[in-house]
Amino acid sequence: MKLEVLTIGTELLLGHTVDTNAAELGRAFAAAGAEITRRTTVPDRPEAIRVAVAEALERTGFVITTGGLGPTSDDMTKTVVAELLGKRLVLDAPLLASIKARFDRMNRVMPAINRTQAEIPEGATILANPRGTAPGLWVQDGRGRVVVLLPGVPREMRGLLVEEVLPRLLERQGGSHAVVRSRTVRTTGVSESAVAERVGSIEPDIAPLTLAYLPSVDGVDLRITAWGLPPAEADARLAAAAERLRAAAGEHGYGTDDADLAAVVLDALRRGRHRLGIAESCTGGLVAERITNVPGASDTFIGGVVAYADVIKTAALKVPLEILEAHGAVSEQTVRAMAEGAQRLFSADAGLAVTGIAGPGGGTPDKPVGTVWLAARVHTTTRAVKRVFPGDRREIRARAAQAALDLLRRLLAES
Amino acid sequence: MKLEVLTIGTELLLGHTVDTNAAELGRAFAAAGAEITRRTTVPDRPEAIRVAVAEALERTGFVITTGGLGPTSDDMTKTVVAELLGKRLVLDAPLLASIKARFDRMNRVMPAINRTQAEIPEGATILANPRGTAPGLWVQDGRGRVVVLLPGVPREMRGLLVEEVLPRLLERQGGSHAVVRSRTVRTTGVSESAVAERVGSIEPDIAPLTLAYLPSVDGVDLRITAWGLPPAEADARLAAAAERLRAAAGEHGYGTDDADLAAVVLDALRRGRHRLGIAESCTGGLVAERITNVPGASDTFIGGVVAYADVIKTAALKVPLEILEAHGAVSEQTVRAMAEGAQRLFSADAGLAVTGIAGPGGGTPDKPVGTVWLAARVHTTTRAVKRVFPGDRREIRARAAQAALDLLRRLLAES
Repeated sequence: MKLEVLTIGTELLLGHTVDTNAAELGRAFAAAGAEITRRTTVPDRPEAIRVAVAEALERTGFVITTGGLGPTSDDMTKTVVAELLGKRLVLDAPLLASIKARFDRMNRVMPAINRTQAEIPEGATILANPRGTAPGLWVQDGRGRVVVLLPGVPREMRGLLVEEVLPRLLERQGGSHAVVRSRTVRTTGVSESAVAERVGSIEPDIAPLTLAYLPSVDGVDLRITAWGLPPAEADARLAAAAERLRAAAGEHGYGTDDADLAAVVLDALRRGRHRLGIAESCTGGLVAERITNVPGASDTFIGGVVAYADVIKTAALKVPLEILEAHGAVSEQTVRAMAEGAQRLFSADAGLAVTGIAGPGGGTPDKPVGTVWLAARVHTTTRAVKRVFPGDRREIRARAAQAALDLLRRLLAES
Repeated sequence: MKLEVLTIGTELLLGHTVDTNAAELGRAFAAAGAEITRRTTVPDRPEAIRVAVAEALERTGFVITTGGLGPTSDDMTKTVVAELLGKRLVLDAPLLASIKARFDRMNRVMPAINRTQAEIPEGATILANPRGTAPGLWVQDGRGRVVVLLPGVPREMRGLLVEEVLPRLLERQGGSHAVVRSRTVRTTGVSESAVAERVGSIEPDIAPLTLAYLPSVDGVDLRITAWGLPPAEADARLAAAAERLRAAAGEHGYGTDDADLAAVVLDALRRGRHRLGIAESCTGGLVAERITNVPGASDTFIGGVVAYADVIKTAALKVPLEILEAHGAVSEQTVRAMAEGAQRLFSADAGLAVTGIAGPGGGTPDKPVGTVWLAARVHTTTRAVKRVFPGDRREIRARAAQAALDLLRRLLAES
């Protein structure tokens, strides 16, 4: 089954909003065996929406839209789609009551403008949206063509997708569908070219699966995709290919699919019964944020210090003043002392420390912006490395946090 | 001037990569007076790329593509565009030398597969890419139609956009162009409907500017846009409208355009000569990360503690054990003691604290997932609030960090 996605919103074209819904829809439909053949973004203008929906319907007969379902004047998707499919808009009394009830529960009176959200194209199926006031709509015309309208707010869109759209889609497809499925082998600490030289020779062997290299601040992801195979065959081929890629990637591979390096590190710590304390300077809390973003981190992560001012490095982490004065805050000696300090302060088995120059200011010829020292410590073994990362402040910080986690991962793998 | 953007990559359609380039291009072109009328995403398949480039060229005569310029087998944009515009691919010797030199500087031998990156459509202008091996290309056909090919790696794309593409675009447009420009008034701590009731009546007055409401975890942005006006008139109308919106939004407005609440808070702290210490639990470093993401934060931010285990709340922050035992870690008493503790630990004038239940586990009927206590303290005045945030773990944490910063902003505004 093929479909197209149309994301609607002038703010998307102006770049004021990043289109995360598009990615979310992509993952969900691919895994369900539906292929998104094209994605289009148009502004909040009735004519642009009309043309794009009509073209996409012509090509595939099935279109998912996001956005333009709110109560305000720039929300016109519903009106345009109703007109295009030759349907009147009618007020749905139960829907109006449920929108009013939602406001009641928040102890608020429903603003008059929200009333339009209870109007639906005649005969459309209402997709209940417990997370917001705009329901989704599944609209089918006399020729069996379908337009599914979803709200643009990511949390609401995601809920409707999982609870309302995917079940209907799977039912519509019946049992015998071919799927588009992917798996990813995640690598870090290695360049795209270097990883390609390690794994490139596998490519002909895994055909008809395709292989893509996806570099990012997290590393290089290797994505293999099966196109239009029966689910069981796709999964078997993907599993075999992922195993070969993983072996070829060697110690640079840290997981598959959605593997998060922070979760991988937490698992390794847990296996060794090591509890973790963190000390960070230039990453400013990002390493702790990555760790605590993993549900259940609290059994392993004790705490962190963001030692931004040097006085905190000496006072809280007990980095000797002589070290700071002799070698500077961005040095091997300091980062080692920070890792030890974090271990001590939090009575932890493992310590992880980062200190560097994220820029834009603060660089010197000896220590340019991007210079970062990282240290990982488990019991009495410390490993420290220096890296010079490219990019702007945000990117340097993200790369430094990932590299810190990777350093601890590699140290734990050896011990 | 109108143009279309085509982002190429199967990984974008599969949702494994979020299309941040599209947003970046949107912002840059709108500000430069070029209107992106449509954005399309297609997979790494020659036929899909060919059809999409041809259609977009037909509609606007000017197309920007991203992606598919790397050295690997899934990179085929250049070949397809050359063929479509009737150009041969030729090896550019200076380009090959510069790619080789880049590898030399990294003390590496250029892999053979990188050689294809030195081939260009005959007559194309090479857009130098100091950040990577794939240059951008500006290809024009005999009818004056242009396709600009940019790499998909965001950092490289952004550099080429600013340094190579926009200057050529402005030159092409001459002096007398109409622009599409926007301004944003950012609000937080208020719902979309409530802000619409405050500012909605202004909408007819600011025509022909349009107004859009953009809710996110950060709050509700109010975006006003001028379409196709001369630059000076657009800017004057936008400035006047932004001022009216800002006034109507009242204390809920915290800035305009790219204003970052963390930077706003840092500025307010700096004005009062207050230095800041942070104590956070459920946000796990995110509040400190937000603050330190602002360049120059080090003059005002001293440090933070991620007090994830309760023992750190008592040991490092001196939250009395009796308070933790009587009221629990997620309580007004605890968050107040944490803010005081952060102030004391970092010898700071201001303290900011967060404790809550980010989920998915840990909720109770009394304190469901999403329950967060926030406290801001300046000198001896503490303000504490309880919020119950919707969403998943990541969203609850993001909302809690923004609300913590907002609480401190409001307290500083009063003092």
